[in-house]
Amino acid sequence: MAEVKNKQVILKDYVSAGLPKECDMVVVATTTKLKLKEGSTGPISGFGVAKVLESKDAKFKQGDLVWGMTGWEEYSLITSNDYLFKIPTTDVPLSYYTGVLGMPGMTAYAGFYEICSPKKGETVFVSAASGAVGQLVGQFAKLVGCYVVGSAGSKDKVDLLKNKFGFDEAFNYKEEPNLDAALKRYFPDGIDIYFENVGGKMLDAVLVNMKIGGRISVCGMISQYNLVLPEGVHNLMYVVSKQLRMEGFIVSKYFPHYGKFLELVLPHIKEGTITYMEDVVEGLENAPSALLGLFAGRNVGKQVVVVSRE
Amino acid sequence: MAEVKNKQVILKDYVSAGLPKECDMVVVATTTKLKLKEGSTGPISGFGVAKVLESKDAKFKQGDLVWGMTGWEEYSLITSNDYLFKIPTTDVPLSYYTGVLGMPGMTAYAGFYEICSPKKGETVFVSAASGAVGQLVGQFAKLVGCYVVGSAGSKDKVDLLKNKFGFDEAFNYKEEPNLDAALKRYFPDGIDIYFENVGGKMLDAVLVNMKIGGRISVCGMISQYNLVLPEGVHNLMYVVSKQLRMEGFIVSKYFPHYGKFLELVLPHIKEGTITYMEDVVEGLENAPSALLGLFAGRNVGKQVVVVSRE
Repeated sequence: MAEVKNKQVILKDYVSAGLPKECDMVVVATTTKLKLKEGSTGPISGFGVAKVLESKDAKFKQGDLVWGMTGWEEYSLITSNDYLFKIPTTDVPLSYYTGVLGMPGMTAYAGFYEICSPKKGETVFVSAASGAVGQLVGQFAKLVGCYVVGSAGSKDKVDLLKNKFGFDEAFNYKEEPNLDAALKRYFPDGIDIYFENVGGKMLDAVLVNMKIGGRISVCGMISQYNLVLPEGVHNLMYVVSKQLRMEGFIVSKYFPHYGKFLELVLPHIKEGTITYMEDVVEGLENAPSALLGLFAGRNVGKQVVVVSRE
Repeated sequence: MAEVKNKQVILKDYVSAGLPKECDMVVVATTTKLKLKEGSTGPISGFGVAKVLESKDAKFKQGDLVWGMTGWEEYSLITSNDYLFKIPTTDVPLSYYTGVLGMPGMTAYAGFYEICSPKKGETVFVSAASGAVGQLVGQFAKLVGCYVVGSAGSKDKVDLLKNKFGFDEAFNYKEEPNLDAALKRYFPDGIDIYFENVGGKMLDAVLVNMKIGGRISVCGMISQYNLVLPEGVHNLMYVVSKQLRMEGFIVSKYFPHYGKFLELVLPHIKEGTITYMEDVVEGLENAPSALLGLFAGRNVGKQVVVVSRE
């Protein structure tokens, strides 16, 4: 029975306040017997792409490529198929199944199409727009015929949004002393759809600028995750006066629609009408710093960690 | 041409900060010629019941009883029929058309049935539950077969909720040092539906206690209306993790459903299976203090001002 070296990233302590630090995580060299029921436990979990070595699930057989919830390690024992999908085609880069064709892609699809029911001519605002999800939401909005503006945290990202991802406009929120004024500049008649990734002050400014009957898809609130006391949002009264619908969602609820999603997106990927961008880091040992980079806004595009190119 | 005395309540100044005060309003004795196009202008507007004296609208004829948007005065010229409905039956008190059979009734109906799609066995929480809208939402919830708890601001109101309006439980929010703990006491398994009338701290506590997939119908946020800077709501992240839908609405959007609403509610009113309670003040000159009473929580049930019993 083969025994292999299995590098893992372990979380040493539960992070209770503030940002996780690199020293909260440790990269350990373990060994694993490649046998079902002998997998290691303990590493951080995340979405990844993998090849099946052995399976007792009829839906997956040896040699299959899969994407889904796996461990931050070289060899994983996956005990649930809830979040595991067979990769149906390999004529696009496999890493795309961690992003545009995987969980973030489904997130953009569910949050934009299923929750917001966008219509041609509507105005759309996306925060954290250069991230894995945001860049796709903007492109979906253009496919529908919407006007779309994105915010991001650097000049490079703003340039990417306008020049690579086809946003109509984009701005650097760090250079806007008054977010309300910035939104009024880009949306003089208001916002129909807000794809919410950040929360806090941005949400407060958006609420003031929503149109009557607007929809807010709440995908995440990354500006708030690591605060002990999240910022207060003061403008919720506009939810009444503007008759807004605000809906949070978790992508796994929409996984049954994965086939429909793939049918929509895959042709656009192959034809290049949807552009996708990755920020690739080599080596599992660099995963902890890559994670911290997300909170610092260092990544440009979907953060991918290469565990193996085999 | 008849000229009549026409008492009016006038708003002297726009109230820009804090609560309106009685001295912001003035009751004036004017005269009005009872002729279309000669109506007075200027009084505060509100929902009321009236008798048609003269009409150039084919939908209304002399002698008709109507409810809808009118002025705080004895005789009104109504120039729009957007918010004006003919009263189809008079075997219930006419004042009910300012409440349970009028705008507040439609508000409870739209916010509970249309926005929350309640199902038998679900758990429902109503804030400001003894008000015109809240008392009805609780009774609708019982008709559907839900478990319903209301909050109010005095012992008398709490008693009414439990003993008169059939709420399963009720509590006085002013006597709860920890609203989160209070909600956990009444909803150990969480809240499916929250009918939001108050905003602020109560909303923060509710967000923590919502069930996954819960719905929040945002009818109003009365605790916030008169604050220069509304309180911050800190727990919006639960909108994502609990996959909540939060929807604001304005009742006028649902006025086309008035017939359907009346069909549901009128039989229950006649049979006494829906109870309705009014807080009646005699005389238009007492309307300003009655309005302030709403903000102070002095009213018990729907606040009605009798302008005339004719």
